Amino acid sequence: MSVRFHKMHGLGNDFVVIDGRAGPIALSEASIRALADRHTGVGCDQLILIEPSSVADVRMRIFNADGGEVEACGNATRCVTRLIGHDARIETLGGILHGRMIGDDATIDMGVPRFDWETIPLAYAMDTRDMPVSWDALERPTVANVGNPHVIFFVPDTYAVPLETLGPRIETDPLFPERINVNVATVTGPHAITLRVWERGAGITRACGTGACATAVAAIRLGLVTGPVTVTLPGGDLEIDWRPGETISMTGAATHVFTGELSEGWLA
Amino acid sequence: MSVRFHKMHGLGNDFVVIDGRAGPIALSEASIRALADRHTGVGCDQLILIEPSSVADVRMRIFNADGGEVEACGNATRCVTRLIGHDARIETLGGILHGRMIGDDATIDMGVPRFDWETIPLAYAMDTRDMPVSWDALERPTVANVGNPHVIFFVPDTYAVPLETLGPRIETDPLFPERINVNVATVTGPHAITLRVWERGAGITRACGTGACATAVAAIRLGLVTGPVTVTLPGGDLEIDWRPGETISMTGAATHVFTGELSEGWLA
Repeated sequence: MSVRFHKMHGLGNDFVVIDGRAGPIALSEASIRALADRHTGVGCDQLILIEPSSVADVRMRIFNADGGEVEACGNATRCVTRLIGHDARIETLGGILHGRMIGDDATIDMGVPRFDWETIPLAYAMDTRDMPVSWDALERPTVANVGNPHVIFFVPDTYAVPLETLGPRIETDPLFPERINVNVATVTGPHAITLRVWERGAGITRACGTGACATAVAAIRLGLVTGPVTVTLPGGDLEIDWRPGETISMTGAATHVFTGELSEGWLA
Repeated sequence: MSVRFHKMHGLGNDFVVIDGRAGPIALSEASIRALADRHTGVGCDQLILIEPSSVADVRMRIFNADGGEVEACGNATRCVTRLIGHDARIETLGGILHGRMIGDDATIDMGVPRFDWETIPLAYAMDTRDMPVSWDALERPTVANVGNPHVIFFVPDTYAVPLETLGPRIETDPLFPERINVNVATVTGPHAITLRVWERGAGITRACGTGACATAVAAIRLGLVTGPVTVTLPGGDLEIDWRPGETISMTGAATHVFTGELSEGWLA
């Protein structure tokens, strides 16, 4: 049986999206890894499986290229909103997200961020605004959980940081029992941040939507910027808005590249 | 207007194949680069355009990811043979190639190799069996033209050679006025070669079909092996056979991954 899919991206963070609402689709870790291979498969950062939901309009499951399932992905949520084509409530492992289209851009209500150390989670209690830890020149970070866990370092120049070597070290540090996404950010104006992200299980990507959300709310919380904040990633811009106690709003592009039909034998 | 395409690969050397036999398809260098982007396009090592031919069954044009057109690609020729599905004469800039399917494998008659220095081409005359030139530890290579130009170094261990730095230096050396594909090969038995290739305009790839042909015929010509020769590339094996004065036969896998339909606005 052949399987139809969509190739989409949000700021170059790219997805294979399979719509499983009409019937169950079985995907093994091995078949996800094979589909994600950029030479012998379709190629993607993450595979997205849309399923029926009993608590929202659809359920969205997110798998990294290594086959592991993750909680949340802001860029993928924008793409799923565009695919559904109208306002949608999207169930994820990180909670229910609300999406709507405004012209060609998708705006997602990303839920309420959490800053308490047990929810991030950290291995032990500490002040999550100004953490007394460091990895080489990266020191005194802050953290936020926006459906998935993020540590954020504010630095003078994000592009001067060797993220390709520090990212995997910090991701796997015992301080973060569920590992962590590593954000290195530079505040460039009262409403502007430049950001690079090492994504847990995926490495450095062109754009990480939850990283943009986590970094913007952390910067607002610390008084470094005020909303709305334009977060500039290597793949393009996202606009993030948030007030303490409220939900995060993220707006940005969601691009449909092509539809495809897989040859037989791809699914487990 | 939407455009249908095929994603295929030969040993992980992957292609977007567009069939333009029904009507002309205009592709600019910019649109080829956009299609070849692995995050925001379809992603491929080369884009293949099938056109009508007045001298063969079909004409195959081959474009690297940088948009430049190249003469020949053995892996792509196997994929086009599989797509056509029967014995086919395929016109390329490197000459007319003959393909046929044997089970799941495609066998291509790759034409007669050329070894004279003007045809490679080299910048000036020298003995092409044992060339008095060197780049660091890579020395005394041989050359062959199998539709496109190749320089071949036989070394004790191909994986010990820093091909990522030496490849681009040799590719652009003034000795090779049309640049060159760089093959680093290790003879592992009387019918066996292990090979890595720096492809002109593409870098190190998982498998280079013309490189396997050029290396095997050069090794047969120098008496290092006898045909048939199994050439083991990072992406898998190819079987090459050749006798002096005859055409080269190359046999190997050609895999269809999926068919796709591009969103509007992709073609120039």
